[in-house]
Amino acid sequence: MTDLSAGSRNRSITLAARPEGAPRATDFKIVGGAVPRPGPGQLLSRTIYLSLDPYMRGRMNRSIGYAPTVDIGGVMVGGTVGQVVESNLDGYGQGDFILCSNGWQEYSLSDGTGVRRLDPADAPISTAVGVLGMPGHTAYVGLLDIGQPKPGETVVVSAASGAVGAVVGQIARIKGCRVVGVAGAPEKCDYVTGELGFDACVSRYEEAFPEALEAACSDGIDVYFENVGGAVFDAVLPLLNTYARVPICGRIANYNQTEPPPGPNLVPRVMGLTLVRRLTIRGFIIFDHADREPDFLRDVGAWIRSGELVYKEDVVEGLEQAVPAFQGLLKGRNFGKLLVRVADDPTR
Amino acid sequence: MTDLSAGSRNRSITLAARPEGAPRATDFKIVGGAVPRPGPGQLLSRTIYLSLDPYMRGRMNRSIGYAPTVDIGGVMVGGTVGQVVESNLDGYGQGDFILCSNGWQEYSLSDGTGVRRLDPADAPISTAVGVLGMPGHTAYVGLLDIGQPKPGETVVVSAASGAVGAVVGQIARIKGCRVVGVAGAPEKCDYVTGELGFDACVSRYEEAFPEALEAACSDGIDVYFENVGGAVFDAVLPLLNTYARVPICGRIANYNQTEPPPGPNLVPRVMGLTLVRRLTIRGFIIFDHADREPDFLRDVGAWIRSGELVYKEDVVEGLEQAVPAFQGLLKGRNFGKLLVRVADDPTR
Repeated sequence: MTDLSAGSRNRSITLAARPEGAPRATDFKIVGGAVPRPGPGQLLSRTIYLSLDPYMRGRMNRSIGYAPTVDIGGVMVGGTVGQVVESNLDGYGQGDFILCSNGWQEYSLSDGTGVRRLDPADAPISTAVGVLGMPGHTAYVGLLDIGQPKPGETVVVSAASGAVGAVVGQIARIKGCRVVGVAGAPEKCDYVTGELGFDACVSRYEEAFPEALEAACSDGIDVYFENVGGAVFDAVLPLLNTYARVPICGRIANYNQTEPPPGPNLVPRVMGLTLVRRLTIRGFIIFDHADREPDFLRDVGAWIRSGELVYKEDVVEGLEQAVPAFQGLLKGRNFGKLLVRVADDPTR
Repeated sequence: MTDLSAGSRNRSITLAARPEGAPRATDFKIVGGAVPRPGPGQLLSRTIYLSLDPYMRGRMNRSIGYAPTVDIGGVMVGGTVGQVVESNLDGYGQGDFILCSNGWQEYSLSDGTGVRRLDPADAPISTAVGVLGMPGHTAYVGLLDIGQPKPGETVVVSAASGAVGAVVGQIARIKGCRVVGVAGAPEKCDYVTGELGFDACVSRYEEAFPEALEAACSDGIDVYFENVGGAVFDAVLPLLNTYARVPICGRIANYNQTEPPPGPNLVPRVMGLTLVRRLTIRGFIIFDHADREPDFLRDVGAWIRSGELVYKEDVVEGLEQAVPAFQGLLKGRNFGKLLVRVADDPTR
């Protein structure tokens, strides 16, 4: 249990500059300050795990009027697992483990909005920002509600060993689909077929990647769960079957682009295929689908307990590792759900 | 009533070559042959009206395994209104007016597949290939089922004075939407606002077309019914609101393209907006939605009778005009639903 002795400091990572292209270390700043004390109706928690997710790259950009943004000098946002240090909020007491949104920092106040108590007996607390948290919820809604897979259909998911992709593919398998992953490094592909039970996994590093994907999808593709964009999307497009669904969850290949890529302009080709093959391409953001969280927690929780669904975490140690770890995330260097252990996990 | 005297000839327009880009006159051939006689279970009809529609351009291409194609030397396909000359088919008698698929020719046999009897007392028979036919059905399903407009939303439709667009916009108006058309010539825009009752219509010929469209859509765009693609799509894209729906019905600007247009490649931009704004882009083809035909005929029929929905036909005279009329259709030269009067309409 945290002892807030006099002189405790709160370290935070703030956005120092809006990145042009790939974020650089100098775009962030570690700042120190006093640990705040909770006012009435507030709680103070110490961050144990910070979740690092690709969507955070968008929050570093200037607002385009739709997506929220982090102000210059503001603390980077992020989902966290914390432990209550001091509480003036009904229903929460010192020592409670909670899902919270402390962002990239060691301590934060909360009025309870979006906070949920975690029972370490139910599942490891780290899963609340992973397979049983936002990434898992994203996979569940994106696949089942947006993708609407039917048994026997072929589902392809990119970033297949990642926090979202691994759950997408395993749910698709559980629902009776043929599942093909796209991943990077060969050991990730081995994990996807060996541990996650996908029918196949193709490395996007392969020289003949489009041909390899086509060979792995001999019946075409009925659902493509889009996490990456770029060359993977280009290779998927001609393989999409009539009535295929394409949930757009992310497009990490484009996040650091400052200019559109060179031509030709393939928008007419995409729209032409969308018409002829009656495709549905649909973007979604998980925050619109909070109503499905109970279903998600029930189903994925049960699949984890039964062993049908497994997960892998990639944990880096210490808040100061958040920036290099996030830089690596955008390059596909993590292997499994990326977490920063900001403080010791007392449940382990 | 047609008198099939000895020596009557059947003229047909066949596909002589697959067009490269814009179809040329030499890509077609007018051929003459004997008028066939119906066998058991068949009827022979004489074509009165031939419908010319943009989708026919796709049928001239080599098959890409999804869309049907016309063989070289084959008669061009097309929806028609005809009159029965001779019938060995139960339920049809000489002189009956029918919706049929005679294609670009004067006489054709049918076994009754897809044939429907028309009562000239219900509506002018030409409407069976227009506002009360495939184009109207396309508008009805594409707007209501794919676009799902809600009262008060802004609906934009391109090719707004065309066979499909005019019906889309009027249904949207009837359903309580704010409706903005995109058309070409200024007299078309005047017709769209004056006769069809759209709230606004922007000419794509305007130099500052994107700005003019933005000014006409001060609350953004909730449904964009896509008929044309190209620069109109590019101008619509940034104006789409969160949760906007984009039914892809056609993309006439691209039909004659033999190569993708030059860069930059805007696919990442389209997909990025699809994600951030949670867009739904969905292609559809009317033949998948036959189950909605009774609803369409009931609703649009009632709106026509009540005067809430009007239509305009652009009729050219004589089968030999089909090719130049179709060439003009791809350039937006028609004004209203394009028909070829292949034989006199005895109901007029």
